[in-house]
Amino acid sequence: MQQIGRQARAASRIIATANRGQKDRALEAIAQQLESNVAALVSANAKDLAAGKEKGLEAALLDRLALTESGVAAMAEGCRQVASLADPVGEISDMSYRPSGIQLGKMRVPLGVIGIVYESRPNVTVDAAILCLKSGNATILRGGSEAIHSNQAIASCIAAGLSDVGLPEHVVQVIDTTDRQAVGELITMPEYVDVIVPRGGKGLIERISRDASVPVIKHLDGICHVYIDKEAEFDKAMAIAINSKTHRYGVCNAMETLLVHESRAQEILPPLCEQYREHGVELRGCEKTAAITDVVPATEDDWSTEYLAPILSIRVVDDFNHALDHIAQYSSGHTESIVSENYTTNRAFIQRVDSSSVMVNASTRFADGFEYGLGAEIGISTDKLHARGPVGLEGLTSQKYVVYGNGHIRK
Amino acid sequence: MQQIGRQARAASRIIATANRGQKDRALEAIAQQLESNVAALVSANAKDLAAGKEKGLEAALLDRLALTESGVAAMAEGCRQVASLADPVGEISDMSYRPSGIQLGKMRVPLGVIGIVYESRPNVTVDAAILCLKSGNATILRGGSEAIHSNQAIASCIAAGLSDVGLPEHVVQVIDTTDRQAVGELITMPEYVDVIVPRGGKGLIERISRDASVPVIKHLDGICHVYIDKEAEFDKAMAIAINSKTHRYGVCNAMETLLVHESRAQEILPPLCEQYREHGVELRGCEKTAAITDVVPATEDDWSTEYLAPILSIRVVDDFNHALDHIAQYSSGHTESIVSENYTTNRAFIQRVDSSSVMVNASTRFADGFEYGLGAEIGISTDKLHARGPVGLEGLTSQKYVVYGNGHIRK
Repeated sequence: MQQIGRQARAASRIIATANRGQKDRALEAIAQQLESNVAALVSANAKDLAAGKEKGLEAALLDRLALTESGVAAMAEGCRQVASLADPVGEISDMSYRPSGIQLGKMRVPLGVIGIVYESRPNVTVDAAILCLKSGNATILRGGSEAIHSNQAIASCIAAGLSDVGLPEHVVQVIDTTDRQAVGELITMPEYVDVIVPRGGKGLIERISRDASVPVIKHLDGICHVYIDKEAEFDKAMAIAINSKTHRYGVCNAMETLLVHESRAQEILPPLCEQYREHGVELRGCEKTAAITDVVPATEDDWSTEYLAPILSIRVVDDFNHALDHIAQYSSGHTESIVSENYTTNRAFIQRVDSSSVMVNASTRFADGFEYGLGAEIGISTDKLHARGPVGLEGLTSQKYVVYGNGHIRK
Repeated sequence: MQQIGRQARAASRIIATANRGQKDRALEAIAQQLESNVAALVSANAKDLAAGKEKGLEAALLDRLALTESGVAAMAEGCRQVASLADPVGEISDMSYRPSGIQLGKMRVPLGVIGIVYESRPNVTVDAAILCLKSGNATILRGGSEAIHSNQAIASCIAAGLSDVGLPEHVVQVIDTTDRQAVGELITMPEYVDVIVPRGGKGLIERISRDASVPVIKHLDGICHVYIDKEAEFDKAMAIAINSKTHRYGVCNAMETLLVHESRAQEILPPLCEQYREHGVELRGCEKTAAITDVVPATEDDWSTEYLAPILSIRVVDDFNHALDHIAQYSSGHTESIVSENYTTNRAFIQRVDSSSVMVNASTRFADGFEYGLGAEIGISTDKLHARGPVGLEGLTSQKYVVYGNGHIRK
């Protein structure tokens, strides 16, 4: 691992100053390598799938592990999309003269070496590598052992693409070991790794955050709320509550708890719950909800559970402050949305809810790198430091101060 | 500590949404409390000084511990200066419509609760507390045990000032214990503390970074370089090399190593070293330097030492790349400056040097929150994540996404 770290550090110096043209040509070369090696990729993946079946992996895991021809085409397409994004590196902002006469600005620069630790999806290998590449960073990737053949086949394509345009292959290194110790070393080498981005389940992320001595950009729970206010417009409330829950279930920006102002519960809950039932959503509710419509009684645990499934907890709240209190107590700080026509209530919601995305009259499903125009995302940070919310290319960079003088000295 | 943490978290919710007027009135009230309690502050400090002398503290430490009437006046003036700074909280930037129709922006918000761990200077108690207050954060301060009476007297003034304007006293809490365990608890309560800012010597900062489970904004070494290029203008090189070293010695943005292009060493080093000697600076040099002027031979250790003293190491480098290599190997990533008239060389220096401040034809002494227009600084971060370089109010905030819709849902 020390050797891999040293190689990454050396490669990071080169990729940090590569110009946009060269990085974009590398992305195109990687796309072409993936396309021309589609058969090899699918057959490497078949080995992983066979081994997975033998080991008795769950169907859902096998599904995530699978790489088809169209999956490879999507990875190549991803490379070309990232190539089309603006290069954040070198962007200078806030340039101005100070009273001393120096001219001061901030220049965006790569972070250096980014370690990615992830689970079974092999497409993460490409997704993460190309975002880091475009933002001028070297990457060390450590995927799940169950995807080892797929990841190595993908790594070969990336290495070949880098080499095609004269960039060092060590810009992207896929750790080819399946031993668990490698992760432990990767996340404790601050001299070689500048940040760790874990991608996977909560267990993985908590373990890495606990053990890492390198900073971690975390993507923890999405316990997202929609609050239907006293002054909500009925149609907007219905549309947003349905869309936030049922558009997709297994995603972090899906609503897990619906809060409804007591004065509107009788009117809104019966038709809304009817629609949820049509979508096959299991409903769990507080006592007041249960008095209005047929729900399973919600327990205390329900308020702090990320279902990632067609299950919804519903709570009738006394007023706006009760909704804020519930959110402050149970939200994971990912995304919350209010449905209201009241100017002052909406401003207070925006100001007082401390989540990475705070919305008015919009579905929580919009909290997403593509929807936010980042082009692509490496994750959605639930941290407050450095990067918060969807993390795109900019989140993989830092800024340094640049000073232009003409012989200026401090008096 | 758990109790203090809970109180800080509760107070952080209130100060986060306090408006600028209230925060500025609190700062003025704290200034007035300090001014009207100057006698009590100086006499509390006298107790610390007496205890320190008894314990045999070094003169330099006693000097840092001392709080005079003019020191109190300076603290009060600091409060008024911070009140005059713009409030970063609530600033919305990059507001634009996305193709989906949602309107997206980023709103600046406080981090929450900031833990400050520092050593003997009692003025840090006020400086740190007021920057955190203005940026909408609650603070838990843990100063050195040798300043305990001074810090508690200052804490009383801050509490009285907060109370004068109706803000909770728990917005700023000074830990009144001298036991070491308190620090250990403070830096491992992520549920109550969002970030730790250690201020003090390298030992303190390394210890805290190692043991903290809360993110740390670090201010480590300043091993700063000036590189005099082949195409440097003589007068600018002399002025910048002298100012960077001799303007102040005990500061992190002072130059510690001077690099001189071989082709200019014979011309520049003799008169420059003559001036250094007049300033009483001890010179240590590489072999090539020693062949030109009278210096102590530099050892390998010299290149990686932050002297914080009138000592300078000098190295004659073969060319620009040799200078870059030296900086990449030995710099602490704080501040480096090049003296050159060459357009391409200067652009390459700005691009390729990976430090929090990179300068052209300017003294390293400009790397400072006041000089950069931040108004005040809580430290100079040598980290790359979150905040880099001088950290002012903005570095004590985060950003959240805000989304305005009109019933928008994902298709």
